[in-house]
Parts: sequence; structure tokens; C-alpha cells
Amino acid sequence: MNTFPALWQSLLPIGRDPATGGYRRFCWSPAELDCRAWFETTAAERNLRPVTDRNGNLWAWWEPPEPQRARPAAIAVGSHLDSVPDGGAFDGPLGVVSAFAAVDELRATGFVPARPIAVAAFAEEEGGRFGLPCLGSRLITGAIDPDQARSLRDPDGISLADAIAAAGADPSTLGPDEEALARIGCFVELHVEQGRGLTVPVGVASSILAHGRWRFTFTGEGNHAGATLMSDRRDPMVPAASLVLAARKAAVGDARATVGRIVPVPGGTNVIASEVNVWLDARAGDDATTKSVVAEIQAMARQAAAEEGCGIRVTQESYGDTVVFDPVLRDDLSTVLGGVPALPTGAGHDAGILASRVPTAMLFVRNPTGVSHAPQEYAEPDDCEAGVAALAATLEHLAS
Amino acid sequence: MNTFPALWQSLLPIGRDPATGGYRRFCWSPAELDCRAWFETTAAERNLRPVTDRNGNLWAWWEPPEPQRARPAAIAVGSHLDSVPDGGAFDGPLGVVSAFAAVDELRATGFVPARPIAVAAFAEEEGGRFGLPCLGSRLITGAIDPDQARSLRDPDGISLADAIAAAGADPSTLGPDEEALARIGCFVELHVEQGRGLTVPVGVASSILAHGRWRFTFTGEGNHAGATLMSDRRDPMVPAASLVLAARKAAVGDARATVGRIVPVPGGTNVIASEVNVWLDARAGDDATTKSVVAEIQAMARQAAAEEGCGIRVTQESYGDTVVFDPVLRDDLSTVLGGVPALPTGAGHDAGILASRVPTAMLFVRNPTGVSHAPQEYAEPDDCEAGVAALAATLEHLAS
Repeated sequence: MNTFPALWQSLLPIGRDPATGGYRRFCWSPAELDCRAWFETTAAERNLRPVTDRNGNLWAWWEPPEPQRARPAAIAVGSHLDSVPDGGAFDGPLGVVSAFAAVDELRATGFVPARPIAVAAFAEEEGGRFGLPCLGSRLITGAIDPDQARSLRDPDGISLADAIAAAGADPSTLGPDEEALARIGCFVELHVEQGRGLTVPVGVASSILAHGRWRFTFTGEGNHAGATLMSDRRDPMVPAASLVLAARKAAVGDARATVGRIVPVPGGTNVIASEVNVWLDARAGDDATTKSVVAEIQAMARQAAAEEGCGIRVTQESYGDTVVFDPVLRDDLSTVLGGVPALPTGAGHDAGILASRVPTAMLFVRNPTGVSHAPQEYAEPDDCEAGVAALAATLEHLAS
Repeated sequence: MNTFPALWQSLLPIGRDPATGGYRRFCWSPAELDCRAWFETTAAERNLRPVTDRNGNLWAWWEPPEPQRARPAAIAVGSHLDSVPDGGAFDGPLGVVSAFAAVDELRATGFVPARPIAVAAFAEEEGGRFGLPCLGSRLITGAIDPDQARSLRDPDGISLADAIAAAGADPSTLGPDEEALARIGCFVELHVEQGRGLTVPVGVASSILAHGRWRFTFTGEGNHAGATLMSDRRDPMVPAASLVLAARKAAVGDARATVGRIVPVPGGTNVIASEVNVWLDARAGDDATTKSVVAEIQAMARQAAAEEGCGIRVTQESYGDTVVFDPVLRDDLSTVLGGVPALPTGAGHDAGILASRVPTAMLFVRNPTGVSHAPQEYAEPDDCEAGVAALAATLEHLAS
């Protein structure tokens, strides 16, 4: 029984912007709460026990029928349900829907797991609302201080703590969850590939680029766009623009540097901004390269700010070193799946955070266009089904 | 009796953002409706007859006691009450408050005008909500088609027509108002100076720079900031940044070019934008220079877009040629005020729009810092009082 198409369709309408066709599933927003309800219903329909952990991550448990004194650690599979602004349908949800469909496929064959199996959906993977990606997996592993997490704010100034409370949950429970981690023997995240690196339907991940986010705040003097002589200006938009071009210049080799978000204050057409905030996303194959790229961009930005008489503040909002996935597990899965290729990814994932605590692997499903984080993101139905089959084979292999 | 300080204080709290100290009096917003109520109350307290014209401009009439068969055309004085985002307290309101205070001053001396006097406040002078500055004066003079005006949209997508209707007014009446114009024999706008060009308390305006607004829309390919190779990108943020630097480069001599507003779509940190909108404000002493500066910026932007494989669309959102104020009236007022200097301004004003139909003059009050369109905008109390006295002398001279 192939349950993927119906499951996929049931999630598809939630949080989609009718104008852009993109998704706006921001953590703890009404649309994302609908995704959480979808997860719980989907779990309940399958007699999987739904649990929301103390960090807002969702779990659906398939437990062996007889309680065991020393229950073996579980195999967890899943991804996330939240999106970037105007994100695609696949980034995150493909892994969660495929996990449920793989469970269905295994059950249809009569498979009885020797270990518990859990379907997982981690909270705020994209950082699309509170700015810090992989927040749910960072919290569970202790990679972020819970007080710092609670005080993160969305673009409207609402704190994570207030957003959680507004959704009827309890923000005071956030923090490292050794009990939850101890229950997981292995985590496998299936995800749509986000570049054009995969030319067969399914592959496994070798590594994640080192990556981080930096906020640059340029401060100048707000003034009138018509009455202020050019020579009297300290316009923070000028060094902000220089930063964009510096990022493009500095990203050579395997490095990537992007400015996708820029917010001038106050943002009026006939007003010289008093402040401009620019977010830099930078990544490269290793830690040293990433940091040297960011240092180069920062130096150029500082020089541009000084030339304009502007101030500059740089805040590292997140950073993750290169993650090399467990090579034994990677090669094992590649073999089980018939010798599929291993490839690195430039995108961050909860699997990359969990890898520091739990043996972790990723399966990728081919992306025919390389487009991701955009409404046009796509994967062929046949490739999605190949992903479900690969995940079922993985679970059968690991949970036997 | 000096009524300026109390009047000034009564308007000051309305629409001020407590965090920035700047004003957010966007046309037809709750804050701006409070300003309108303030205007009507202030008029009523003085027995001035308040009228809202068919374009949402406010008038307060001081009419000679006996109806005359052929009433002479009125002397109108005033400015506007709306603000740019985080604007200062003076830009606009100083002219309206000073006009009421000048009426009080004249009445206290027993002055009886031979012509009607009107205090005016024009709607959406800044274009802070619907993007088109001097909207109220453009509508009354027929400088904009009313259908075009009604379909202007604010950043939330609300049309001017809907905003007017939501405020309980009638958007169907917008359009040229020959009757209203015929009642006005002369318009004098008092305004805070917005550069550092005035070194005495009060001056008169000689001209307004040619000025306009252009929206540049750069289109590229939305994608993932980590997974997309630099060589695969068509990132519209790159030509948008080039436009900012091109504007700085092209604005030489008396020309000014500013980017104060930039909106990437979708605006996520880890998302290559699919589209970036950038607004250019450009001005210069004459039409030819302004247009050549904009053409130069446009050429650089087109080249940058082509190099990135991006599309570009340029929309002229507003344009006004150089305005030279009536030289006879200008010299007359300068003499009445004791030989105050005449100076040009880089800022647009309703007086500049009305000048095409009505003899028009402007009085400037000294700006000690040159800061405008920012919360720090300031004028000394003594200079404000000098402005009121100058406006009273102007009215006494013109309405006798």
C-alpha cells in the first residue's frame, strides 16, 4: 500500500500563501500549529504514540508490543515542518511524510521492529521566525542556552517564550533533554537535495558545510533625502550595499556568501536611513575557510562604514562547524540501498546538530532543478517514492 | 497672547512612536485621524469653520463677518500633518500650528482681514503611506488622475480608496477641485528648513529642486543560500546593491540621490531573494540634470542586472520639475519681513504643486542641525516664534 501521495496531499494546503504559492509555516504561528495538529492526527491514525518533547519537537512512537526491561534505543527518522518565508513544499515535510509512509510500508509487509521506531519533526529548523536555525535540535542537545533561546525575537518583536506561551505550551521547560537523547540510538533524516548534486533518485549525505549567520548593523544619521547635501551624509545604506558586493567577491572556491535579508530603518523613500541591518549567510567546506571568508567580508564592510562615517556592529547569530556524518553508518546505508552515491550539502540540517550526540545519517532525494527555499522547489513523484522505499529499507535494516 | 507653545504641545504626543521618538502619522491611519480631529478641534475653538475638501485636505476658514457679493479670494496658510516613517515633529506640523498661532496673534491685535483667511493641512504630503508625495495637492490641482490615486497601495496592499473608506470618508469624490482653487488667491506655506542653508531665524523660498521617485524591481531566481553554487546564482540583491553605489557615484554637483527603502522578496536570511525592490529618490537644480543623473544610475543598474542574469523594471512613481516661486511675491514678503534671505530647497512641498495654479510663497524657519525626516529634527523655540510673527506679518500684509 502506497500511502505517500495521500499523506502528501493532506499536508500540502497548510500555510501556503495563495499569492506566491510559497509556504509561510513559521514556528508557533497558526499555520505551523496546524502542521503540528496534522502530525498528531497522522500519528494517531497509525496508532503511533504522539509526544511533544520539552523543546517543542514532535515524536510519533512505534513501540514493540511487549514492554522490555532494557528496551534498546530507537531508530528515529524525520525532519521538520516549518519553512523559510515563501519556502517550497519539500524542504522538511518530505522527510516527515516519507517517514510516516515508510512506517506504513513496513507494517504492510508485516515487519515487526526489534527496536522502537520514532517519526520526528523538529521545531524551528529554518530559523524562519526567530532567526536561529535548528533551534529544536540545538535545544535538545544543549547547543544553545535555554534562556538565550527564550529571549530570541521574531521580526515583530515577539519573544520565543511569548510565542510558545501564546500557543498554549510552556516555555519554561526548554533545555537539554538527556532522557530524550538517550532513547535515540540512531537518527536518519530524509531530505530533498537542495542543489543539483544528485543525478540518481536517492543518495546519502557525506557532510554539511561549515555555516553561520552574521548580522551587520550599520548606523549613520537619518536625514532628509532632498535637503541633505551629499557631502553632509552618513548614510548606512552605502556600506550595507558594499557588504552585499563584498560577500559576492569573497565567496570563491566552495564558499557561499549570501545576503537575502536587509532592513533599513526607518525605510522611507525620501529618508536617508539612520540604521541598516543586513544578514550574511556564509558557508564553506571547512571551518577555516568559512571564517576567513567572513573575516574578509567584515574587513571590507568595516572599511566601507569608516569611509561613510558610519558605525558598524557585527553579531554572530549562529555558527556550525563542518559536520562529517558517521562514515560507517553512511557506507552501511549506501550498501543497503544498492550502492547509492554519498554527497556533501551546503544546507544546514537538524541531523547536523544531532550528529554531535547520536549516530546520524541523511538520505537525499534528487532535486531536478536545484531550486530550494523558493515556491518552485520540486521533486519528481517517482523520486519521492524511491525515497520512501529507501527509508523503509533503512528502517528495516537498522531496526531489525 | 502667544498661543504657539500650548498648541504645539497639544499636537506633539499624537502618533509618536515611544521606542524611536519619531512620528508615524501615515495618511488615514488612526494616528493621522487623531491629527485630523486635533485640526478640527483647534479650528472650532477659534471659531474657524473647518472643512474637509473632496480630496481629504483640511481647511479652517476665518471669513469676514458680512457676506460680500464678490468675496475676494482668500489668503491660505498651512502645510501638512502627516509624516514619513519615524519623522520629526516639525516637518509639516510647524506650518499648521504656526498658522493657527498667527491667526490668534492677528486677532489679539484686533486685526480684521479684508479677505478671507484659511489655515490648510494637505493630505499625504510625504507619500509615507501610498508612496506618492503631495497627494492632496496633486489631486486638488489635477496633477494626478483620481483613478490612479485611488488604486495606490500602501505596504500592506491596502488601496487609498479602501483606506479612505475605512476611515469613514468617501473615496469617490477625489479629483480636481476648481471651486476650491478659485477661492484661494495666494498660498503661503511655512516650513522648517531641512538643510543647513538658513543662518537667520526666518527666510523665504526661491525654488524647489526638480525631484522624483523611481522604483527599480530586480528579478532573479529564489534559491537556497547554502546549497546553490555561486556560479549557479541569479541573485537580484547584487544589482540592487550596485544601484545604491551607482546612486552615490552619480550624485555630483547640486544633485542628490538616495536609496532609503529596499525590500527583498521573500527576505529570509538563508534564502537567495527572487526579487528585490529598491526606491531611488533623485533631485537636482534643474530638470535636465535630474534626468541625466537618473539615466546614469539606470544605465549602471541595467548593466549590473545583466551581469547577474537578472531582470530589471524601472517605474517612475513621481516627478516634479524645478519650481521657481513667484518672484514678485517672494521679494514682497522678504521686504515685509525686514529683508530676510531667499534660499532654494531640496525638499518637495505642497506649495510646489500649488504654485502651478496659485501665487505661492514659502517661509522657512531655521534648522540648527540640518536634520529632517528623523526623530532628531529640531528648531529653536525662539525661531519658531519668529516664524509665527513672520506669518502673522505676512497675513496682515496680504489680507489687508
